Amino acid sequence: MTDTNYMELALQMAESTQGQTSPNPVVGAIVVKNGKVIGMGAHLQAGHEHAEVHALSMAGAQADGATIYITLEPCSHFGLTPPCANLIIEKNIKRAVIATYDPNPDVAGQGVKRLEQAGIEVTTGVEKEQADWLNRHFFHYIQTRKPYVTLKTAASLDGKTSTYSGESQWITGEEAREDSHVLRHQHDAILVGIGTVLQDDPTLTARLKNGASQPTRIVLDHHLKIPLTANMLQDDEAPVWIFCAKDADKDKLKSLEESGASVFPSSTPYVNINEILQILGSKKVLSVYVEGGAAIHGSFLENQAFQEMICYIAPKLIGGKAAPSVIGGQGIASIMEVPNLNIRSVENIGDDIKIIATVKRGENA
Amino acid sequence: MTDTNYMELALQMAESTQGQTSPNPVVGAIVVKNGKVIGMGAHLQAGHEHAEVHALSMAGAQADGATIYITLEPCSHFGLTPPCANLIIEKNIKRAVIATYDPNPDVAGQGVKRLEQAGIEVTTGVEKEQADWLNRHFFHYIQTRKPYVTLKTAASLDGKTSTYSGESQWITGEEAREDSHVLRHQHDAILVGIGTVLQDDPTLTARLKNGASQPTRIVLDHHLKIPLTANMLQDDEAPVWIFCAKDADKDKLKSLEESGASVFPSSTPYVNINEILQILGSKKVLSVYVEGGAAIHGSFLENQAFQEMICYIAPKLIGGKAAPSVIGGQGIASIMEVPNLNIRSVENIGDDIKIIATVKRGENA
Repeated sequence: MTDTNYMELALQMAESTQGQTSPNPVVGAIVVKNGKVIGMGAHLQAGHEHAEVHALSMAGAQADGATIYITLEPCSHFGLTPPCANLIIEKNIKRAVIATYDPNPDVAGQGVKRLEQAGIEVTTGVEKEQADWLNRHFFHYIQTRKPYVTLKTAASLDGKTSTYSGESQWITGEEAREDSHVLRHQHDAILVGIGTVLQDDPTLTARLKNGASQPTRIVLDHHLKIPLTANMLQDDEAPVWIFCAKDADKDKLKSLEESGASVFPSSTPYVNINEILQILGSKKVLSVYVEGGAAIHGSFLENQAFQEMICYIAPKLIGGKAAPSVIGGQGIASIMEVPNLNIRSVENIGDDIKIIATVKRGENA
Repeated sequence: MTDTNYMELALQMAESTQGQTSPNPVVGAIVVKNGKVIGMGAHLQAGHEHAEVHALSMAGAQADGATIYITLEPCSHFGLTPPCANLIIEKNIKRAVIATYDPNPDVAGQGVKRLEQAGIEVTTGVEKEQADWLNRHFFHYIQTRKPYVTLKTAASLDGKTSTYSGESQWITGEEAREDSHVLRHQHDAILVGIGTVLQDDPTLTARLKNGASQPTRIVLDHHLKIPLTANMLQDDEAPVWIFCAKDADKDKLKSLEESGASVFPSSTPYVNINEILQILGSKKVLSVYVEGGAAIHGSFLENQAFQEMICYIAPKLIGGKAAPSVIGGQGIASIMEVPNLNIRSVENIGDDIKIIATVKRGENA
């Protein structure tokens, strides 16, 4: 087993906890001595032990002289738990292999520095790209104080989300739809427009066989048209936050709050994507999964207010000039001005294709 | 080197001649003796030597007792050249490995039978799937007497072919555009609607650094709106065939024919996709590359008159309810009725993605 092998495993352990650690990052750690794994751990939940604590606890006295693999630079400050850098030093670890640095520019490198000052051999950058990707929500939030925004679309090969007569169930297959529930589980919030609520009356919960973390449900609803009988207002699975126009009906607002929802009138005449993201950031929402519909996607596109796009593409052709496609709104006028993305991955999922693309750095605020 | 290795090479040799052998299939052959390649060949052009003739000619007297690898069952009848099965027997080949059978049900298996009757050991089915794919145009034509139809689209990740203001140059990158010229070279004909001619005034030629076969240029033009000054009418690169409505202007028709185009009035009031395909079949057009625009793609979709779809997808988001998407027309009303495709391949091409999908067998006429 090489450094890369151990780090890949630590990353997989961290990945399995995506969706359960917010507002903390996901972290995995492995302790190895004389070619044998003697400790493994991952951070499971904010306020609970960090990955290093679990792994070193499993290793016990054997940790003396061992190597530790960690997917993220160990903390060097007292937060909800004592600094992990100190623990690693106390346990007399000989070598630390770290995938990537703490994203917070104020503390980046301090954990590594403390280890090195204690005489520990430190190797950094092993599987860095993958480690940065794994915590992209957290890293973006720490650097911008706004949530990482993922737009999700599901369409036919010709980009249609329904037939001209309005049929949309089902374009993508069961595997793609299940995968989308994993993504709900992995984001702090899910966001839709009032059109989707009025048309589909969704619960917006993450439904997975082994249970799931439930994202906060966000509805953009200028005129508070959401009915008090909406499905998502009938359960306690997750909070419902409704963003409306400045002058939305005060009585309806009150009724909605009495039904358990939180309502946020805009400071401007209409709801404003950038203001919403600032509010969500202030409430420690690190990530938002935007399911649409087309008009909502159009707003995020026109505001260049997103970081990632996940497209599920079904091997079907629907056609029709009047059949709706994935992104509506006004759109971008000039090819020169459209955001360029990087294709991160393309994979088969059931009979469908899943494309993950990210906005090129510097193109979005 | 295994049977599979030799056959893969023979298939690659055949693949390199796609676009130059119509109305014949592409075929590659390799002769091997005592673990050494002693002959190689491919069919280069209709009326010229078959692959087996070239390969056996290179092998010369050494062919005695050798093994021959052929991507398609050797012919057993006298066509423009004598039957290859006879030549293989005369050369005293010991073993023949054949990827796939002749697609013509009337003669399939006869070449193999003749070899076996002469005491040659025959193995069939090695790399069959790939061999069938390579000659899909030819196989489809032989079985239906209509050309194989490939729809090509190029769009943003959200399925748009231009911005709402009409900008479309360039959505995909240079590599994808060059690849599309390879596809023009590999098809017998290229087809567009009059809208594309009036908007872009294309030459519809295949432009590749090493030269290219030029597909016959087909325009669907109900009312013969194509101007006599159209670029494609000014050169002799390839024939121009215009399909129009039954009652299209006779004077314009005459002028177009005088300018070198062939004009085909429909037997029905408007141009009819299925009639066009029958006419093309009768003229030994084995394959048609449909570049659109959206309305033309819509017609082929609504008539379920296509076998393959090639989608170039650029990592851009354009958005806009009014921005056109790849397939127009009326479209299909019900999800239950939309043609289901198989994703054949997904690959990166430059910064873009290329998806090849084929209609599931039995779904299209």
